[in-house]
Amino acid sequence: MDIVIIGTGNTATILGRKLNAAGHRIIQIFGRDAKAASELAYELNTESTNYWSVVNRNAHVYLLAVSDIAIEEVAKELKLPYKVVVHTAGAVSKEILKESSNHYGVLYPLQSLKKESSYLPETPILIDASDNDTLMILEILGKSISDTISLANDAQRLKLHLAAVFCNNFVNHMYVLIEEYCQKEGLDFQLLLPLIQETAQRIQTIPPAKSQTGPAKRRDTATIEKHLALMESYPDLKSIYQLLTKSIQQHN
Amino acid sequence: MDIVIIGTGNTATILGRKLNAAGHRIIQIFGRDAKAASELAYELNTESTNYWSVVNRNAHVYLLAVSDIAIEEVAKELKLPYKVVVHTAGAVSKEILKESSNHYGVLYPLQSLKKESSYLPETPILIDASDNDTLMILEILGKSISDTISLANDAQRLKLHLAAVFCNNFVNHMYVLIEEYCQKEGLDFQLLLPLIQETAQRIQTIPPAKSQTGPAKRRDTATIEKHLALMESYPDLKSIYQLLTKSIQQHN
Repeated sequence: MDIVIIGTGNTATILGRKLNAAGHRIIQIFGRDAKAASELAYELNTESTNYWSVVNRNAHVYLLAVSDIAIEEVAKELKLPYKVVVHTAGAVSKEILKESSNHYGVLYPLQSLKKESSYLPETPILIDASDNDTLMILEILGKSISDTISLANDAQRLKLHLAAVFCNNFVNHMYVLIEEYCQKEGLDFQLLLPLIQETAQRIQTIPPAKSQTGPAKRRDTATIEKHLALMESYPDLKSIYQLLTKSIQQHN
Repeated sequence: MDIVIIGTGNTATILGRKLNAAGHRIIQIFGRDAKAASELAYELNTESTNYWSVVNRNAHVYLLAVSDIAIEEVAKELKLPYKVVVHTAGAVSKEILKESSNHYGVLYPLQSLKKESSYLPETPILIDASDNDTLMILEILGKSISDTISLANDAQRLKLHLAAVFCNNFVNHMYVLIEEYCQKEGLDFQLLLPLIQETAQRIQTIPPAKSQTGPAKRRDTATIEKHLALMESYPDLKSIYQLLTKSIQQHN
């Protein structure tokens, strides 16, 4: 398919690379930041613009990979009644695009995408559309770049987006706090990397409830007390420790 | 080296397999549960007992891989003044073993070990000992089963054990809660597995602070409000969401 990508960030870049690799033609990149747009266009071997008036009108699909709050503004600028216009956001309704086209939808990559990545991570794609024709086009497009395509309406997509916040944002924040703690205590954070890897690896085949271990689950009060004493100068760590310990114990 | 393993659980089993694979002789397994002891002995091609009186006195090293609360009891039973006696616990002082031998120490695997695993995960080993001779023996033993050996005294080991609780127990508990949420909401938890994998993969090369994304970090109040509304019937999820969102925002 011929595709115009609106946006130059992580999602635009990674989806652009995947679409390119799948043999689609990225016919233009639009970016408010002309430099970022031309850089991405150079990488994807296409042209770029930062003027709405010269956005190419001949693509099959217009992929809006911009920040959540910018989607509405872009939809107002882009009037493309017979084109497929889709956004890539987890927590934004597809209806935000209805003024832009009568063929609109969502192609949401359920993955943490970073343009600095040296590889293209496996990325489930959740799709939704205003009509069956558009849905079929998005299914074809999605299947060309992912082994896992799933239908999800606005409500289901928002729920999975919430789940993703826990599995990525919150998990990563715990790593941030623990890396800081290790630095301050003179401990080598690198020692924890195999444990982090194994925790994620195991869940690929074993349900998490079967893998739960640790002092909270064992109700090992002596160890919990020792841990709490270590966190006097780390109020964030301590609050999270107390809340999660309580939550684990209520689940047993 | 010739080793007696005291214990039959996850740590005893995985360390036994690693020691076996490294060419050491496991000369006996002791377990209070005779059946579990003979099963592990069968797997490791050695003998077993559940009587203290017949514990083999001719090993070089006695590895106590029992629950934290059982270590003291075992140390009372095992009087082996000229043998190396070590425990494998993160949150227990090495001094608990001083009545058992004058050569005692700790060999703590900083990893989540499950005997059901079909593979032997990479496992940093933290060592500590009562004296330099014992330390040298533990270093040799540790290096035979791990690429990463690190000295850590009681205080450092306890701090790393706390860090491990966050990186494994708490992270896994979030997966437990999210899997339940997905089941109740009719969502496919499997869709989140690539995201979980990528979150752990990325930290192997990129510091977690550089990977932080999401509505909390962006201070995207609209999305946060939508998420909170979804969690009315999930008080555990909601409390964790609120606390971690606050913590992420205080870190920006």
